[in-house]
Amino acid sequence: MEEAKGLVKHMLLVRGRDVSIENLHQGFTHVLETTFESIEGIAQYLPHLAHVEFSKQFVPQLEKVLVVNFKPTIVHKQYSADVMLI
Amino acid sequence: MEEAKGLVKHMLLVRGRDVSIENLHQGFTHVLETTFESIEGIAQYLPHLAHVEFSKQFVPQLEKVLVVNFKPTIVHKQYSADVMLI
Repeated sequence: MEEAKGLVKHMLLVRGRDVSIENLHQGFTHVLETTFESIEGIAQYLPHLAHVEFSKQFVPQLEKVLVVNFKPTIVHKQYSADVMLI
Repeated sequence: MEEAKGLVKHMLLVRGRDVSIENLHQGFTHVLETTFESIEGIAQYLPHLAHVEFSKQFVPQLEKVLVVNFKPTIVHKQYSADVMLI
């Protein structure tokens, strides 16, 4: 199939409930994280009918919402250390 | 090398500056995301000297901070759709 202009190629969507114990969640209880191939992919997704419909139905049900987009830069790929738990 | 009790085996740390255009960032400007093999891995990391030292130096410099932990559940692994940008 020929690729159309603005095709959203890949999107990985994960979700989860907050289980943190540091008490720094500021009242937020859930996370939805969407991974795109590029920042441009987000710009293509925002006006997409699937996103518009999702936002229209979902957001009004939320007490509060916070959205950030970022291009991940790897700081540590692997980390090994002894942890003394006494 | 024999594995010690409480060993933090794998940690992927990524960072990025917010580039969202929806204006829902609530004043937060940066993201630090750390990926562990398990929820238990986070519990092992919290009292780790590296984390304690990082928190002691880093957190006081921040205007505000929000921390959530979640176990990601995959909702969509791949997504393909035509997006009409007109």
